[in-house]
Amino acid sequence: MNQMTAIPAAASPLEMGRFADQNTPLVRNCWYVAGFADEISRHILSRRLLGVDVALYRTLAGEPVAVRNRCPHRSFPLAKGRLEGDVLVCGYHGMQFDPSGRCVNMPSMPIVPTNANVAAFPTAERGPLVWIWMGDPDHADEALIPDTSWLASPEWKSVRGAYHIKSDYVAMHENLLDQTHFPFLHPGTVGTPEFARSKLDVRLEDDVVVIYRALRNAPPPGIYGIPMGLMDKRVDRFSEARYVSPALHTAYASVTDNEDASGRPIKYRFNITHLITPETQTSLHYWWFNSRDQKLDDMEADEFLRTASEKAYLEDVDALEWIAQTVALDSEPQFDLNFAPDKPGLLMRRSIFERAEAEQARGL
Amino acid sequence: MNQMTAIPAAASPLEMGRFADQNTPLVRNCWYVAGFADEISRHILSRRLLGVDVALYRTLAGEPVAVRNRCPHRSFPLAKGRLEGDVLVCGYHGMQFDPSGRCVNMPSMPIVPTNANVAAFPTAERGPLVWIWMGDPDHADEALIPDTSWLASPEWKSVRGAYHIKSDYVAMHENLLDQTHFPFLHPGTVGTPEFARSKLDVRLEDDVVVIYRALRNAPPPGIYGIPMGLMDKRVDRFSEARYVSPALHTAYASVTDNEDASGRPIKYRFNITHLITPETQTSLHYWWFNSRDQKLDDMEADEFLRTASEKAYLEDVDALEWIAQTVALDSEPQFDLNFAPDKPGLLMRRSIFERAEAEQARGL
Amino acid sequence: MNQMTAIPAAASPLEMGRFADQNTPLVRNCWYVAGFADEISRHILSRRLLGVDVALYRTLAGEPVAVRNRCPHRSFPLAKGRLEGDVLVCGYHGMQFDPSGRCVNMPSMPIVPTNANVAAFPTAERGPLVWIWMGDPDHADEALIPDTSWLASPEWKSVRGAYHIKSDYVAMHENLLDQTHFPFLHPGTVGTPEFARSKLDVRLEDDVVVIYRALRNAPPPGIYGIPMGLMDKRVDRFSEARYVSPALHTAYASVTDNEDASGRPIKYRFNITHLITPETQTSLHYWWFNSRDQKLDDMEADEFLRTASEKAYLEDVDALEWIAQTVALDSEPQFDLNFAPDKPGLLMRRSIFERAEAEQARGL
Repeated sequence: MNQMTAIPAAASPLEMGRFADQNTPLVRNCWYVAGFADEISRHILSRRLLGVDVALYRTLAGEPVAVRNRCPHRSFPLAKGRLEGDVLVCGYHGMQFDPSGRCVNMPSMPIVPTNANVAAFPTAERGPLVWIWMGDPDHADEALIPDTSWLASPEWKSVRGAYHIKSDYVAMHENLLDQTHFPFLHPGTVGTPEFARSKLDVRLEDDVVVIYRALRNAPPPGIYGIPMGLMDKRVDRFSEARYVSPALHTAYASVTDNEDASGRPIKYRFNITHLITPETQTSLHYWWFNSRDQKLDDMEADEFLRTASEKAYLEDVDALEWIAQTVALDSEPQFDLNFAPDKPGLLMRRSIFERAEAEQARGL
Repeated sequence: MNQMTAIPAAASPLEMGRFADQNTPLVRNCWYVAGFADEISRHILSRRLLGVDVALYRTLAGEPVAVRNRCPHRSFPLAKGRLEGDVLVCGYHGMQFDPSGRCVNMPSMPIVPTNANVAAFPTAERGPLVWIWMGDPDHADEALIPDTSWLASPEWKSVRGAYHIKSDYVAMHENLLDQTHFPFLHPGTVGTPEFARSKLDVRLEDDVVVIYRALRNAPPPGIYGIPMGLMDKRVDRFSEARYVSPALHTAYASVTDNEDASGRPIKYRFNITHLITPETQTSLHYWWFNSRDQKLDDMEADEFLRTASEKAYLEDVDALEWIAQTVALDSEPQFDLNFAPDKPGLLMRRSIFERAEAEQARGL
Repeated sequence: MNQMTAIPAAASPLEMGRFADQNTPLVRNCWYVAGFADEISRHILSRRLLGVDVALYRTLAGEPVAVRNRCPHRSFPLAKGRLEGDVLVCGYHGMQFDPSGRCVNMPSMPIVPTNANVAAFPTAERGPLVWIWMGDPDHADEALIPDTSWLASPEWKSVRGAYHIKSDYVAMHENLLDQTHFPFLHPGTVGTPEFARSKLDVRLEDDVVVIYRALRNAPPPGIYGIPMGLMDKRVDRFSEARYVSPALHTAYASVTDNEDASGRPIKYRFNITHLITPETQTSLHYWWFNSRDQKLDDMEADEFLRTASEKAYLEDVDALEWIAQTVALDSEPQFDLNFAPDKPGLLMRRSIFERAEAEQARGL
């Protein structure tokens, strides 16, 4: 299964043309998150996803529905209309669409016009998330929805948050794959000097980029050590981060306390789920969960983890938006330099580029 | 006079290229409203009309004057200058222009430069309106100013209002010509279900698109029935709407009460005057009047009609701006579908397209 | 030294193509002001100069440093990082640059990468100003920094101010070279009718455009007469204004009181220093000093001159921004007319055009 492949060396500007950046067409044939499940309701929500304005609502039976937020008649935004049962009624001339996007009534016409439909997008609900497929509907296979089962498991407890970020999804994934920024951008939370200097391993599992590190007999990072009560100890650490798809990055961390009062080692496990959906080429929706398998009922741990995560992720938001502004406003382009820690990011960028290129080649 | 012409059937995207939309060059050879007469005064007003910034003022004798709001010397906006009698003085270097736009003094020059003029635009005052001609000045025939004499007639009483709308004049006219939106966008005022289902007639009088409906023994719409005290009666209704020119849409409605206490039928007549001037390709100025020939001194009727009109027109403003945003932000174009009630709008769009095309062909 | 050259007559639109305007590439091989000396400190300042975002700081020894505000690795704005001694540390991955822009450490790399440098710009401090050279570094000769020695001389006393202006540096210089606007734009301060009608002389000293006027036995302008206590006298006036470079315009004025109580004529001298640095093609940074050689300790004179200067320069800011908006929003271009008083401005515009053209020809 694990397939080690050649990792790109420092690339020339010419070669960089085959690594995705903010100008690469967005990968569409992928399940992306449309929103937290509790954001989608009987109140119609409009949200731009992959450049397309989408109207999101639930049927009376609770099924999430997603259609293009633009009436095919005179382009009125359907989310400004209203629901009649499961039918979405346009607020301009009353045109009616069922959850599949099919027009079922046009009040000013004696018969229902055929082919007067609005595009509908496949959706699927998984735990606290509603997923959407904006690509070729014939390929909308729910088996391709990535696993986030821990978010709905009673063995895990999660805190969560969401941000709108004026940056592109490639830069966001690259940020998550280059953890050498932790000591500089996040000195108060996840960044420890030991971590920065530790050996990094990279592997490729098909399109999934995996990076991992192991640290024995080291101080725990504050973000996990404080809420778990381990700051006066030395622990064994293991961390793994995965670029799973354009929509998902997962990070796993374990901290093992070998000196627990029970006499037996206790392993504290954390799953960080980063859900990323491009809004446009240069902006994105971001939803995150910080999940743990210990102290599930500890509300102080909840509060600490929520606050510390928000602090760290806002530092990332600032950095990404500052960079996007710098690039957008600069009067001359710059070919960014690449160093050894950029290898996982470059693998991700090559994968996104190749997926986008394949979609363009076959006309989607 | 009435010339029935073929009405376009549902058009293909290719054919739609000959119907005006927000990208069609603006029709310039047309009298447009520059403002309410009481907006033009000895205080210089600047207003963008058909893409051109115009400085508007009155002479000492009260004649409205319109010149390009850009000094021919260093592009200073003349409306930031001041009036000396009938002469407009630039606020930068003191260059002086008479109401015809001719330079009559340049303080730093010993003699007045010739040909140092600013473009002036023909204007004409009609009742509460000042009209302007932004096209070929040789064709500025005041006989072409459309009739709005009821606005200044003692037999009619009007309430009025004005909006700036971030939409294009084609969409605005189309909104006015498709009244099947009344029950959905204006359920509280002009929209009654009977009206939506009534038979619509369309005719073309040269370039004027006329739609009309007659309804016998029907409930009156609230906007007229309430102020006239007819809500407990059934009435005969007749309504006619006219796309008169790119600058003007008029709507006429009559409500006949056959059971008046006088024993004789009483006809209540209403004229709605919609005055539309493009500001740019994607924004417009809108002035409206709601006029009636009954209960002229009834101040409660004034207040009711003003408030109800404002409510309905703001619903139109919202709809038009939502649509314009939807179209502007969408990442892929949409060819809007057309249905039977779109025929009057398509006739208007074909007329505007052909006028714009003819102007482009002859270089104006 | 003084070289009288032909002054362009009223130019045709075709000929105007060889006079700089807001579209002409910015002249880069020139010392420009980067900021007041007291703006540059151990707190890193970011400022866009000639389209380039620059990070400005001082070394521990107090030397001003200017580097491009964009990390060569992932485009993070370096001004968001921090100083460690004289070294600028990127806030994203900790990359370190010395004041020459050379990378001296990359924490995640075992050895310092070569050629991983950021562009540095030559700077020089002169009195209250820090100058920067954004052109070819091989030509950054400090001997080319224009003289502003009076700003640091004990024989002169200065008040100062600064504005950010949404206009271009060509229009700003043209404003300063055409003083016939004084009576119209600045009627309350520098504009006197006698001044507007006085004879103007123009000469060219290499690239320096000089205009001067002499007025004998005239009332003093309020801006100098009031703080010096001369308003009840008639004086001899001499004024000279110099377009020195794209970065500098100096104005000199003397007012001679022949009736001083001492029995001897007293000459009051004023130097106005206008420092102009393009931010972009359509915006600029502006710093000004009003310096005098009399009543150096008179704090009321300070306050009067500061307030009167601010009032006059804000009138210029308004005029320039109104013009820039008028030009930017107009739907059709206008070739501005030129008159006799525009000759000094046209000489300046021809000089800037030729410098820009020469830079473009040799690739910088």
